Amino acid sequence: MNDIAMNASAQVTPVFDDVLAAAARIAPHAHVTPVLRSRTLDALAGCELHFKAEHLQRAGAFKFRGACNAIWSLDDATAARGVVTHSSGNHGAALALAARTRGVACHVVVPEGAVAAKLAAIEAYGATLHRCAPTIAAREARCAQLQAELGAELVHPYTDPRVIAGQGTATLELLASVPTLDAVIAPVSGGGLLSGTAIAAHGHTPAIEVYGAEPEGARDAHDSLREGHRITGRKPDTICDGLRAELGTLTFPILRSHLRDILLVDDPQVIAAMRLIWERMKLVVEPSGAVPLAVVLANRERFANRRVGLIVSGGNVDLDLLAQWFARTP
Amino acid sequence: MNDIAMNASAQVTPVFDDVLAAAARIAPHAHVTPVLRSRTLDALAGCELHFKAEHLQRAGAFKFRGACNAIWSLDDATAARGVVTHSSGNHGAALALAARTRGVACHVVVPEGAVAAKLAAIEAYGATLHRCAPTIAAREARCAQLQAELGAELVHPYTDPRVIAGQGTATLELLASVPTLDAVIAPVSGGGLLSGTAIAAHGHTPAIEVYGAEPEGARDAHDSLREGHRITGRKPDTICDGLRAELGTLTFPILRSHLRDILLVDDPQVIAAMRLIWERMKLVVEPSGAVPLAVVLANRERFANRRVGLIVSGGNVDLDLLAQWFARTP
Repeated sequence: MNDIAMNASAQVTPVFDDVLAAAARIAPHAHVTPVLRSRTLDALAGCELHFKAEHLQRAGAFKFRGACNAIWSLDDATAARGVVTHSSGNHGAALALAARTRGVACHVVVPEGAVAAKLAAIEAYGATLHRCAPTIAAREARCAQLQAELGAELVHPYTDPRVIAGQGTATLELLASVPTLDAVIAPVSGGGLLSGTAIAAHGHTPAIEVYGAEPEGARDAHDSLREGHRITGRKPDTICDGLRAELGTLTFPILRSHLRDILLVDDPQVIAAMRLIWERMKLVVEPSGAVPLAVVLANRERFANRRVGLIVSGGNVDLDLLAQWFARTP
Repeated sequence: MNDIAMNASAQVTPVFDDVLAAAARIAPHAHVTPVLRSRTLDALAGCELHFKAEHLQRAGAFKFRGACNAIWSLDDATAARGVVTHSSGNHGAALALAARTRGVACHVVVPEGAVAAKLAAIEAYGATLHRCAPTIAAREARCAQLQAELGAELVHPYTDPRVIAGQGTATLELLASVPTLDAVIAPVSGGGLLSGTAIAAHGHTPAIEVYGAEPEGARDAHDSLREGHRITGRKPDTICDGLRAELGTLTFPILRSHLRDILLVDDPQVIAAMRLIWERMKLVVEPSGAVPLAVVLANRERFANRRVGLIVSGGNVDLDLLAQWFARTP
């Protein structure tokens, strides 16, 4: 993914101190999200669940943390030239909003055919949209062109140590609130959130177990860890629109060295978990955000009577899709 | 509504001291719900909105407050005989859960054809269901029979000063959190919540403006205040399933003496407001709970630049109905 155009620092693995520095850097801008409980869901799961409510983060997802850390890490000269990324999803919106907190120009390359509501949100945060053909090659070419023409800095959604360190701050806050967790579970897509989660968790508590939660229909991270090399080029098939990316060159080795396991669930399990969170906790979470709970409910013995932290990654859900989702729930 | 069988104290109008006493009485059992903000919705509404999140109350609605106050007001001899009510909605579930906090037997009369999921919730809280024909007469007769046979105490959903005082505790908490509100708005159905809200608000701040929020399709309270007498016997037509009751003999005079106005909104306005709360605040609220926001958005001049408290009454929503609701949103 555009590795050629990436700046030299992009492949430096972040460490716990980077997460601590990120926390200080984003503190004036990001929300400290609440950690929520539900006695009903505890009873259902047979363990003690602590939900880190990143769907209540600014722009509706944890992505704002990494984007904000990247933006406020720029030196002034770089900041003056602006930033660029290609994402029509939560990262694009998060980077646009983060850039606005510093008055930095933000360019977002989006494929033709992207959801109009998402593009409107990115524009509402003040970013400039650049449309291109709906292929990876076209997106990367347009991105590289903007980097070259404007001198804009690429902020990749996950192959960026500043982004990974920023995502880890959610887990720092979770452990500050509940210091004695036995395990923490985060969804995995490109691996930025899960890498940051693992670095933060093990920096705080070396013995804590860190798990990835992944949909069956996008199980490249699970299989990559099993096979010992990064699997790419598959076509994902899952309703979890936030979890369709594949691991990057930076995140894969981090996950290899930190994870206890990646646990898989299918879409009906995700929908059932999402429905539980909506009905019992009265929280609007997106399918991706419900994957950790789905994993706990599908692995009751593993987590029985333990204290488990779940990163609820986001709440940006297309309400018009609900009907078809819930129609598929048993 | 079964006035003959009602105990003598049922028509005593509660006062501010009763709300204060209720707050102390329910404190060990009820949640102090958060007061939530949204800068996006403030900008949309052109005023400062403070959402009292009663959808996060136990059993998912403010109803637990009134039910809990009633249960813990009983003398031991009465408590030993149990309580009875007729409601297949939030009040039935709330009374069942409140009764369980004291180990009191709870009987709920429900009409044949009531939603199975709601009945399951009431039973899950330990109440005994008594089915009857789906008419008001049959429900009241069955209720009176249970009162006579068991000596059970009727806890009416709103024609009960203990219930009204309990509902007022939400506004006490709201004003403790935001003491300088200019106005407070609560939905109106039978008027228990709105009566409690008004008594609490004016006890705390005599100059505060108290508004009712009512769906056009169930505007009996609005018209009753206009015409100066209680209008009954209409057939409500609104998606707000929590707002289909009519004012009672106890609540009507309270509202007459306290309210600035009752403001009407139609179902599409309610759905649009509910969607905003879901999408922007990530909160699952039921249609009835979104009526106060709909009222503010439909009356921007009246509330411009003012500090407004909104009672978000509940979050018990049938997710299977969402498709048809949102299909009707512009």
